[in-house]
Amino acid sequence: MTRPRNDTFLRALLREPTDYTPIWLMRQAGRYLPEYRQTRKRAGSFLDLCKNPALACEVTLQPLARYELDAAILFSDILTVPDAMGLGLYFAEGEGPKFERPLTEEWSIRTLIAPDPWDHLRYVMDAVAEIRRALDNSVPLIGFSGSPYTLACYMIEGGASDDYRRIKTMLYDRPDLLHRILSVTADAVLAYLNAQIESGAQAVMIFDSWGGSLSADAYREFSLAYMERILAGLIRKKDGERIPSLVFTKGGGLWLEAIAASGCDAVGLDWTIDIGEARRRVGDRVTLQGNLDPAVLFAAPEKIAAEAIRVLENFGPGDTGHVFNLGHGISQFTPPEHVIALVNAVQEYSRKMREKQQRVT
Amino acid sequence: MTRPRNDTFLRALLREPTDYTPIWLMRQAGRYLPEYRQTRKRAGSFLDLCKNPALACEVTLQPLARYELDAAILFSDILTVPDAMGLGLYFAEGEGPKFERPLTEEWSIRTLIAPDPWDHLRYVMDAVAEIRRALDNSVPLIGFSGSPYTLACYMIEGGASDDYRRIKTMLYDRPDLLHRILSVTADAVLAYLNAQIESGAQAVMIFDSWGGSLSADAYREFSLAYMERILAGLIRKKDGERIPSLVFTKGGGLWLEAIAASGCDAVGLDWTIDIGEARRRVGDRVTLQGNLDPAVLFAAPEKIAAEAIRVLENFGPGDTGHVFNLGHGISQFTPPEHVIALVNAVQEYSRKMREKQQRVT
Repeated sequence: MTRPRNDTFLRALLREPTDYTPIWLMRQAGRYLPEYRQTRKRAGSFLDLCKNPALACEVTLQPLARYELDAAILFSDILTVPDAMGLGLYFAEGEGPKFERPLTEEWSIRTLIAPDPWDHLRYVMDAVAEIRRALDNSVPLIGFSGSPYTLACYMIEGGASDDYRRIKTMLYDRPDLLHRILSVTADAVLAYLNAQIESGAQAVMIFDSWGGSLSADAYREFSLAYMERILAGLIRKKDGERIPSLVFTKGGGLWLEAIAASGCDAVGLDWTIDIGEARRRVGDRVTLQGNLDPAVLFAAPEKIAAEAIRVLENFGPGDTGHVFNLGHGISQFTPPEHVIALVNAVQEYSRKMREKQQRVT
Repeated sequence: MTRPRNDTFLRALLREPTDYTPIWLMRQAGRYLPEYRQTRKRAGSFLDLCKNPALACEVTLQPLARYELDAAILFSDILTVPDAMGLGLYFAEGEGPKFERPLTEEWSIRTLIAPDPWDHLRYVMDAVAEIRRALDNSVPLIGFSGSPYTLACYMIEGGASDDYRRIKTMLYDRPDLLHRILSVTADAVLAYLNAQIESGAQAVMIFDSWGGSLSADAYREFSLAYMERILAGLIRKKDGERIPSLVFTKGGGLWLEAIAASGCDAVGLDWTIDIGEARRRVGDRVTLQGNLDPAVLFAAPEKIAAEAIRVLENFGPGDTGHVFNLGHGISQFTPPEHVIALVNAVQEYSRKMREKQQRVT
């Protein structure tokens, strides 16, 4: 395996020098793109789209056809793993993801087992392989999974929640049961990510969307500890190339030092933390990914450029260690043409920053 | 004016020694109490309840009849101020607060004016006076308001929002308009809080529920700056007694130093920050209020006590500077008897901590 022709993203993760700050966007293949909505309509349901490797490949590539992005990310849903565990994922119209059989009974928790990704999640592996073929070594492909705690939130609540009442009652009242769920889920996520790497993913990211709803102590015990277990078990090298890993806990800015010490190569930041302060706190131990407020993309192009430059300037000088991204997934209400202003501003301005630096030194 | 017979809460805010750590609960008069639901039914709508001083007084006192709490807080809604500004507050069944006339047009922003609290918000002042009479100097009464940014969120979005798309588009695209709204709203909040103090409030709290959805830079410019303006204008002394102020930005843990320097006497903490770490960061400059995860109250009483003790131990030794509270409002699904376990654990354990300390020194 050789590196992709544009390996800027991988270089930034591995702390090798780069010509400019690479950029990709969380949820870059999504509803804000009219071509995505077209494919989605052809596919039938959202889940049909996820489970069809050819169509998943098609939507994965759509944002790359429009924008000069530095990475592709597998199009899939974070809840494929609990679905493969037999919980029965479905999407109620306008209501978000739901499970037919949430984990409400002790027996269902005791009998939970980690699925074989090559069997129940074969469609994801097929999509990864197909996307790699289609990318033809142009840019790297990121594989991903939800974190065990985030998956457990959905598995226990039965869907999205605004107070996490069920999982938190379990956390405080029956921590043994929650640890059992998290342990099985961590095994499942580890096998899932390693299978994605075997199938061709060149970096992997763990999305911890709901870990930020925990207290500091509970975060370490119930979310971070299980991500650390996964990071320790990941395939680190494939065909001679390092496979870097990223961890993103939304709302995790307070726990940055602990996340940076988890064994990952890069830490995703949401937009509430100053990226310069984050860099001062974790030094050069990890690469930082982020962290523009996705709402900036609603503003006029010149304002978007100004805010993107502010993030680059806040991060400060250096020729590696920063992957530009939004602080959260791109909104479905984003005008697609606004993304061009962002990508151009980041790549052009960061290139100039490096040139200026070289003249100084 | 003399201090209430139980002045532990005021002493903790003013950094005077206390015999134990005082406790009150955000939203302590609320839906989890069956007697509240009874009164609410008698009142008619939620807004009818807020606007009826006798009934507002009745529900304010309900939690104090059940629990040995160290403070009462005015029962009201944070959106009374924009309602008095003419935006037409109403509550759609099961949908939360809405405005009939949200600020969507430039002319409505240009013509916005701060209401006279003695006129349009007289019912709040009447409630404050009536509650003070009913409390009969037993415990102090806290007055409150939403922060300008939090009120502006509702005023611009027209109700609750999960992405703050309208206000953030304005923030990045037309900051001049948002500053105009925030400026008028800050004037309104200042007059409102001072009128509450004149009517008998013995401490005042600003609830910044949505400031935590901003980037670090935007938080300072659009939320904190306006709270600072209010804090600078508050009546600091009434009848010889200091009127302490509290600021609570949910999700503001990253910006603690800046909040602690805003001019307030106490900073409210949500449950995501370790209160010991918060204390190390802001030293003894301000009192800290918080910060138990409200979800702990779903667990069994012995678990509640253990988690409350963990917060006290995390805060550490000392005989003042901590007001115990939840990290967010109490959930409507809380079993009322569970609150007893919390209040007892906090008051008893903190008393023991002080006694142990005295033996050591």
